[in-house]
Amino acid sequence: MAGRQGGHHIACTGLSAFPLTPMRDDAVDERAFAAQVARVAASGVDSIGALGSTGVYPYLSRAERARVARVTVEHADGVPVIVGVGSLRTSHVLEHVDDAVEAGAAAVLLPAMSYHPLTDDDVIGLVETVAAHSPAPVIVYDNPGTTHITFTQELYARVARVPGVVSIKIPGVPTEPAAAREHVATIRGAVSEDVTIGVSGDPFATAGLAAGCDAWYSVIAGTVPEVAVRLARPALAGNAAEADAENARLAPLWQLFTEMGGSIRVIAAIAELLGIAEQPCLPLPIRGLDGEQRRRVAAVLETLDHAAEPDRDE
Amino acid sequence: MAGRQGGHHIACTGLSAFPLTPMRDDAVDERAFAAQVARVAASGVDSIGALGSTGVYPYLSRAERARVARVTVEHADGVPVIVGVGSLRTSHVLEHVDDAVEAGAAAVLLPAMSYHPLTDDDVIGLVETVAAHSPAPVIVYDNPGTTHITFTQELYARVARVPGVVSIKIPGVPTEPAAAREHVATIRGAVSEDVTIGVSGDPFATAGLAAGCDAWYSVIAGTVPEVAVRLARPALAGNAAEADAENARLAPLWQLFTEMGGSIRVIAAIAELLGIAEQPCLPLPIRGLDGEQRRRVAAVLETLDHAAEPDRDE
Repeated sequence: MAGRQGGHHIACTGLSAFPLTPMRDDAVDERAFAAQVARVAASGVDSIGALGSTGVYPYLSRAERARVARVTVEHADGVPVIVGVGSLRTSHVLEHVDDAVEAGAAAVLLPAMSYHPLTDDDVIGLVETVAAHSPAPVIVYDNPGTTHITFTQELYARVARVPGVVSIKIPGVPTEPAAAREHVATIRGAVSEDVTIGVSGDPFATAGLAAGCDAWYSVIAGTVPEVAVRLARPALAGNAAEADAENARLAPLWQLFTEMGGSIRVIAAIAELLGIAEQPCLPLPIRGLDGEQRRRVAAVLETLDHAAEPDRDE
Repeated sequence: MAGRQGGHHIACTGLSAFPLTPMRDDAVDERAFAAQVARVAASGVDSIGALGSTGVYPYLSRAERARVARVTVEHADGVPVIVGVGSLRTSHVLEHVDDAVEAGAAAVLLPAMSYHPLTDDDVIGLVETVAAHSPAPVIVYDNPGTTHITFTQELYARVARVPGVVSIKIPGVPTEPAAAREHVATIRGAVSEDVTIGVSGDPFATAGLAAGCDAWYSVIAGTVPEVAVRLARPALAGNAAEADAENARLAPLWQLFTEMGGSIRVIAAIAELLGIAEQPCLPLPIRGLDGEQRRRVAAVLETLDHAAEPDRDE
């Protein structure tokens, strides 16, 4: 089943942009989302990932998620679309797969969501069931900070052997170059050649790509894509000096991610400050940044050379 | 809003039994569940908690959860029913509250579920919104192993001040008596007098009740209620010697909980072995115990003096 595809070919390499799903009055702000997808698609990214963690997939109903998948494909202008299909219950994941494929997804992104802790056998059972069901290729998503599953090298190797799995989205790598190379080489050694490895955790992207990752599954590319493109192009071309220089320029942004408990609230504040989303744009109970934290994000945003323009007309 | 009640008075003290919600062919096995609720209600517990963590609430759809709440009240024979209303999104929690109250819940149980980590202010905002909305009193559920929220003493104090909150369900206390007393006394000191403190994590129940907890929110009481009643009665009456003796008899069961990653798989295996539920009864991707682990549960079950009888007629 490996190599089966949705509406558009996807290689699971290069720069993949994961936009926020902005909320407005406890509903998806489809107009703001569609405009942002179009903006991202025009920026030169290699794929667009709807309903990733920043896309707040686990907070949305099935109907909302199906609609977000459709809106993404409609506004992606031919750029391949990845759709997140995670859920706590396997049968619900299969429903999300059906909706994603119906929408025209080129691949589905499968996190191992957990409430009660899952065993490795549980995770393998989930991946096997989803990959056997899905006509679209499967990207397995390792995000221990949200799903609370710890992928070992052995588990990477097992999921990579499941027919239909084409990529693994790994969390941050060590930022020290030699340690990053060893980390990625270990995963590469465990995972079959036709499965790509994509780094996530934007502060680790430069180190991950330099260390041999095939893709950068990027949060900032979903909101300020031109900033991500400027980092990704030299990094993917092996131009380490230029990539390192771009990465160094973004250090204040990475620092905000660390201080504010991850990227989600920082990205939401940036989207709100740029007028890409209404304030507040996160689903409750998650409150956005305000006061001093918001002012600090605004100050860092001033230093980024982004192309986004306010899109509000009220 | 404190003191508002559902269909039956509830004091949030004593022994509260949290049954499994058994699945069968990816649907709730209503017949098995109803029979088990009736069995628990007849055992002498003080309340029944539907849709707790063992009740697999986050894996179920809104319709399934509403139905489970109704079935519980219908078969509880007047025993007050607590219904779990947790969800990642505040608006979904409010829908579950509406369904629980409509079903006749005497109280609602509110976990602070998280995917993206929540701040203390997020948690307080959630509790305030739910308590203001709910005509039934609210029990706040602290379960860091599944929700990944760490309640500090300060957060306990803040949630206990929210009007409508009547109890806090805390995770395990230290098993050493003096340490347990200090732990519970610290929480007691932070929490207003009219809010009860209930211990969960069955291996810690004896220590928690001896240390001054008002309630035991019990998993085993939902599946082998007579075993829990035999431990709870002396413990709640302050008969430490008898409670300790009962607790010591259950040490092999507590050991299984530790070894098998928590109580859920052990309890599911017990329910299956007793014929209370069909095998497999957990929602996928969670696989039940098999092979040697299942044999070990069966061996421990042999040592428990339980009253359950097989209830299958196929």
